[in-house]
Amino acid sequence: MGLELYLDLLSQPCRAIYIFAKKNRIPFELRPVDLLKGQHLSDAFARVNPLKKVPALKDGDFTLAESVAILLYLTRKYKVPEHWYPQDVQARALVDEYLAWQHTTLRRSCLRALWHKPVGAGCQVFEGRPKLAAWRQRVEAAVGEDLFQEAHEVIMKAKESPPADPTVKQKLMPAVLAMIG
Amino acid sequence: MGLELYLDLLSQPCRAIYIFAKKNRIPFELRPVDLLKGQHLSDAFARVNPLKKVPALKDGDFTLAESVAILLYLTRKYKVPEHWYPQDVQARALVDEYLAWQHTTLRRSCLRALWHKPVGAGCQVFEGRPKLAAWRQRVEAAVGEDLFQEAHEVIMKAKESPPADPTVKQKLMPAVLAMIG
Repeated sequence: MGLELYLDLLSQPCRAIYIFAKKNRIPFELRPVDLLKGQHLSDAFARVNPLKKVPALKDGDFTLAESVAILLYLTRKYKVPEHWYPQDVQARALVDEYLAWQHTTLRRSCLRALWHKPVGAGCQVFEGRPKLAAWRQRVEAAVGEDLFQEAHEVIMKAKESPPADPTVKQKLMPAVLAMIG
Repeated sequence: MGLELYLDLLSQPCRAIYIFAKKNRIPFELRPVDLLKGQHLSDAFARVNPLKKVPALKDGDFTLAESVAILLYLTRKYKVPEHWYPQDVQARALVDEYLAWQHTTLRRSCLRALWHKPVGAGCQVFEGRPKLAAWRQRVEAAVGEDLFQEAHEVIMKAKESPPADPTVKQKLMPAVLAMIG
């Protein structure tokens, strides 16, 4: 068995890995893990990631959790263009700094903001925010429009999804509350 | 000017960098930043790290924030033994996984626990917890008893420190509350 990626595209770190792998033509088997159905809590998934979190990677017998570690693993194992993780020590350090910063700062605040005002629930967050809209356009242009749409399809359609099963919702609630503090 | 490290040993990520640099005989100038005096909020420090957080690194004109990025920068720039960051792709991925996990999981929970029950305030957390005590002994043996004591001196004596200036305390509170959620 080759590379397997356990993802739910509702999750931002999962989308980052999905886009990175697709953009760099890294061959992988997508193993969908439906968070809203609580599939990440199953015993089967716990064998891939005992922490029961997506994203997770399996490469033969080797398993790996944490999006940053997975991105770096893919960078090292597959031939990806130099700009993703430059050889130059200082340029590389700035990539590491960003990868750490998005954990310590960006992701935490965004999780809170999203919990209160989900982008996917129909809020037009890009309207009237030219800097944010320009940033989105740059990202879309860099990864390619098709791949951008494909990776964001689930979250953009979140509003239309049927409501989550109340039992699963109850099961997930403590983890969500712990996550957003 | 050579390598400068801006640290307050009250902070765990700062201690990690301090221990790592000392253990590997990396020459550096220690630039103490007293968090309890709010020195990290000064304009002078903002020129080193605009996020106004320790740890921070300055190497000539190059500045870097985020403890994980700083540790990796030191690993790459200086000759440190292979075991810190192995060449083998899978072994290295497990180090990256740990470095990310301590951000997403360990540090967040510990910050909360410490806020409620500071280790430094005299709680005997190692008593009656043989696994935790054994882990501490392993760490102490690995880094060397003297360096371990030196790095932990401030936090172990926190109980005896004079109470923080109330004005500074008030200034710091929003950041602390945001951090521990």
